[in-house]
Amino acid sequence: MAEVRLHELTARLGGELLGDPDLVIDRIGPLEGATVRTIGFIANPKYQADLAGTQAGCVIVTSALREAAAARGAAIVTDDPYLYFARLTQWWAARTRPPLVPGVHASAVIESGAQVDASACIGALAYVGVGARVGAGALVAAQAHVGADAVVGEGTRLMPRVVFGEACRIGARGLVHSGAVIGADGFGFAPHQGRWEKIEQLGAVDIGDDVEIGANTCVDRGALGDTVLEDGVKIDNLVQIAHNVHIGAHTAMAGCTGVAGSAHIGAHCTIGGAAIILGHLRIVDHVHVSAATVISRSILKPGHYSGYFPFDDNAAWEKNAATLRHLHELRTRLRALEKKNP
Amino acid sequence: MAEVRLHELTARLGGELLGDPDLVIDRIGPLEGATVRTIGFIANPKYQADLAGTQAGCVIVTSALREAAAARGAAIVTDDPYLYFARLTQWWAARTRPPLVPGVHASAVIESGAQVDASACIGALAYVGVGARVGAGALVAAQAHVGADAVVGEGTRLMPRVVFGEACRIGARGLVHSGAVIGADGFGFAPHQGRWEKIEQLGAVDIGDDVEIGANTCVDRGALGDTVLEDGVKIDNLVQIAHNVHIGAHTAMAGCTGVAGSAHIGAHCTIGGAAIILGHLRIVDHVHVSAATVISRSILKPGHYSGYFPFDDNAAWEKNAATLRHLHELRTRLRALEKKNP
Amino acid sequence: MAEVRLHELTARLGGELLGDPDLVIDRIGPLEGATVRTIGFIANPKYQADLAGTQAGCVIVTSALREAAAARGAAIVTDDPYLYFARLTQWWAARTRPPLVPGVHASAVIESGAQVDASACIGALAYVGVGARVGAGALVAAQAHVGADAVVGEGTRLMPRVVFGEACRIGARGLVHSGAVIGADGFGFAPHQGRWEKIEQLGAVDIGDDVEIGANTCVDRGALGDTVLEDGVKIDNLVQIAHNVHIGAHTAMAGCTGVAGSAHIGAHCTIGGAAIILGHLRIVDHVHVSAATVISRSILKPGHYSGYFPFDDNAAWEKNAATLRHLHELRTRLRALEKKNP
Repeated sequence: MAEVRLHELTARLGGELLGDPDLVIDRIGPLEGATVRTIGFIANPKYQADLAGTQAGCVIVTSALREAAAARGAAIVTDDPYLYFARLTQWWAARTRPPLVPGVHASAVIESGAQVDASACIGALAYVGVGARVGAGALVAAQAHVGADAVVGEGTRLMPRVVFGEACRIGARGLVHSGAVIGADGFGFAPHQGRWEKIEQLGAVDIGDDVEIGANTCVDRGALGDTVLEDGVKIDNLVQIAHNVHIGAHTAMAGCTGVAGSAHIGAHCTIGGAAIILGHLRIVDHVHVSAATVISRSILKPGHYSGYFPFDDNAAWEKNAATLRHLHELRTRLRALEKKNP
Repeated sequence: MAEVRLHELTARLGGELLGDPDLVIDRIGPLEGATVRTIGFIANPKYQADLAGTQAGCVIVTSALREAAAARGAAIVTDDPYLYFARLTQWWAARTRPPLVPGVHASAVIESGAQVDASACIGALAYVGVGARVGAGALVAAQAHVGADAVVGEGTRLMPRVVFGEACRIGARGLVHSGAVIGADGFGFAPHQGRWEKIEQLGAVDIGDDVEIGANTCVDRGALGDTVLEDGVKIDNLVQIAHNVHIGAHTAMAGCTGVAGSAHIGAHCTIGGAAIILGHLRIVDHVHVSAATVISRSILKPGHYSGYFPFDDNAAWEKNAATLRHLHELRTRLRALEKKNP
Repeated sequence: MAEVRLHELTARLGGELLGDPDLVIDRIGPLEGATVRTIGFIANPKYQADLAGTQAGCVIVTSALREAAAARGAAIVTDDPYLYFARLTQWWAARTRPPLVPGVHASAVIESGAQVDASACIGALAYVGVGARVGAGALVAAQAHVGADAVVGEGTRLMPRVVFGEACRIGARGLVHSGAVIGADGFGFAPHQGRWEKIEQLGAVDIGDDVEIGANTCVDRGALGDTVLEDGVKIDNLVQIAHNVHIGAHTAMAGCTGVAGSAHIGAHCTIGGAAIILGHLRIVDHVHVSAATVISRSILKPGHYSGYFPFDDNAAWEKNAATLRHLHELRTRLRALEKKNP
């Protein structure tokens, strides 16, 4: 169990410390169910009421809650408690997780001509293909796969059983979760006499720095050029990114989302879970798409866009859904009535 | 080819046997296309007509169909033919599948401090991390991965190429299918100056007894606490379970479903395929959600809930969908007309 | 960098060559951003304007654009430029990719009784189970898995980390992408006293010739019979095909699609991305389903079917979605008004 005194914590992460600097914390946790050795946070002053109920030894708050927090025990005052909490988890993880051990596990297979930095770690039963390059401090975890001529940047981690395909590239400080497949063929065929003639996918995937890709997510290689994920892109689990898609810097996509071929998504966008973005369209920067929304045409104006069927009890939904199939006719009838009632 | 006489079958599984006890069966199958050596079932008396057409040597029926079934050949009468069929498939599988062979394959990698029960089976090219525990009669199949400090319960089977992550726990008699990823990081970031600051995911995944998880399904570890799947939960393929989700006992979720962070789903629920459950909401016990439905707020009353757009031929859909974007305005116009026609 | 002269290209692929037969091409690419050593194409004469802007050394066109194309440089005239482009990518890939090296990698595990053709390639850390058969010129790539008694046809490629399950069969010239799981259990349970009794899945998966299956896609084994994919079927990434589904020849399904149990889909259909096809229904040949459409009943007439909620800015969607929950009531009120205005 990791233990830390509050003054060690603020010495590293900053913030104004109120209360006993020698108080020992051994857990980061929610205020509900917290113990005297738990540190928690309140991101928004509107949750001030939570202060009263918690046993947490220390609470991270904004200056708006300084007095209220101090009245009940130790507190750390900072401009952005949620950001402070994020950095606290990072520091916590760095202190409690075993460090990367450089070197190649005896059971790993490294093909000829692969270049693995001496400070990189290649796990058990991992595979690194011909001509691949693995950078300083990078991790190719147990059973992961790096294809021929692929490039893994400094400090990037490919978790167990990732497939990082031939000739694909990822920059520095990336994190690709288990089961993700980077660089499978895009889905391209020419119809010919009732059959499908394969279009070989000759491009690759080009990923910037500080990109995170979720478990079992797929990013296909481009047909001719590359599929591109710019710096700071964050993608959740089970997301499909088709060939030739371009995702702008610092855009985040939640789980189960699908992006069809050649879609161009801007920077600083957020895409809700299970949203579907059709192919060959453009979304500008700072667009926010709700979960389960189908984006069927380009979005050229920043904003918040939505579109899914509101759920209801089954009987009510059935009646409304059945009527929906006559909606256009209903409008026509309404117009006729309006003519009669000028 | 496995062969069994009807009396052996009823001796093991019960039921009232009508007809020749020495009749040989070598296949469980649908009534349509059945041979005289096939055993089939009729779950619902309303399908009595199927009896006439089938060549099946034996049919499992309820007492309502005793005479009709006996009139055509051998039959097994039982209260719940579908349940009987399920147990028959289990018995069949146990008789026909090769037994688990205890021991560790020479090509597997077992890290120091891992505890593998002598009766467990660790397959070819599998990996078991530092401090992991694999229980009696458990299977870690070929190329599967058990992370450091993970716990695999008695008789639980991790199929080929499962990733069962660090410090995650699963109880007894579980079954996790190929490609599933248990314990990848939840999707958590704090926004900061247009970038995303990672929230390290410090929790794990806690799975009860008798849980089945489908192929390529993802269950993320909790941010601070654990993601929890209670006893008897059944999850199909390609399902995304986000961090801190709680799924109650004996709830079943069909394929392609997504559950967002911190959703709390009750016990004995059924969630249809490709349903989406948004985050931080609560669903009580005995709720049934139709396929492709988006649950966007809590459901506090048991029942059946639905919501998806009814499909139509493309031209009709286009007209109705276009009108839908003016529905609120249509209601306003209807109200105006009602005022004119009191 | 591969290089080819135009006359070598037309000698192999046909077409009418206009311009310098010795012109050297080293890249296939889009007309936009093309260099004098790039070959591109115009599939549809309506894009004739693209000819003027491009620097491409050679453009593949139909006879309708012969003069326009010849006026600006080299060209290849053919009936179907898109098909010509597809075959060009195939030829290009064949010339530039390293050939398959027959043999079994020293780190692979081949169980007793497995039959691997001498011309097949079994990659590093791959697994081939008891009694499995791998045909001539087939590839079981690094870390892929072939289950016991499975059959991999001539020239079929299982990419890195595919799981091809026990007793499943795939024909000739197939391509299964990384992470795909063929032959996991179908999702079948009988309810019993609030719990789920497993129905063991005793069937397999039967896949024809020339089938392509995408990354992290799942095709479950049948409950009693087999799940069937006929010749020429093409399936994209992250698709779920449930047990006992039957997909007719040359049908193509885009990413994130889900097909529920026992659905029977005809031949020459196209299913858009993230479409959902419910179970136990039938779709005839030549049906085209739009993306994100839920097919909730059988389709017995060829045609184009659609159904998803049109997205809008969030505020407009919220108003229309709220009104939609009263649509049936609105129709009743409209009828009442019509009565008053005969």
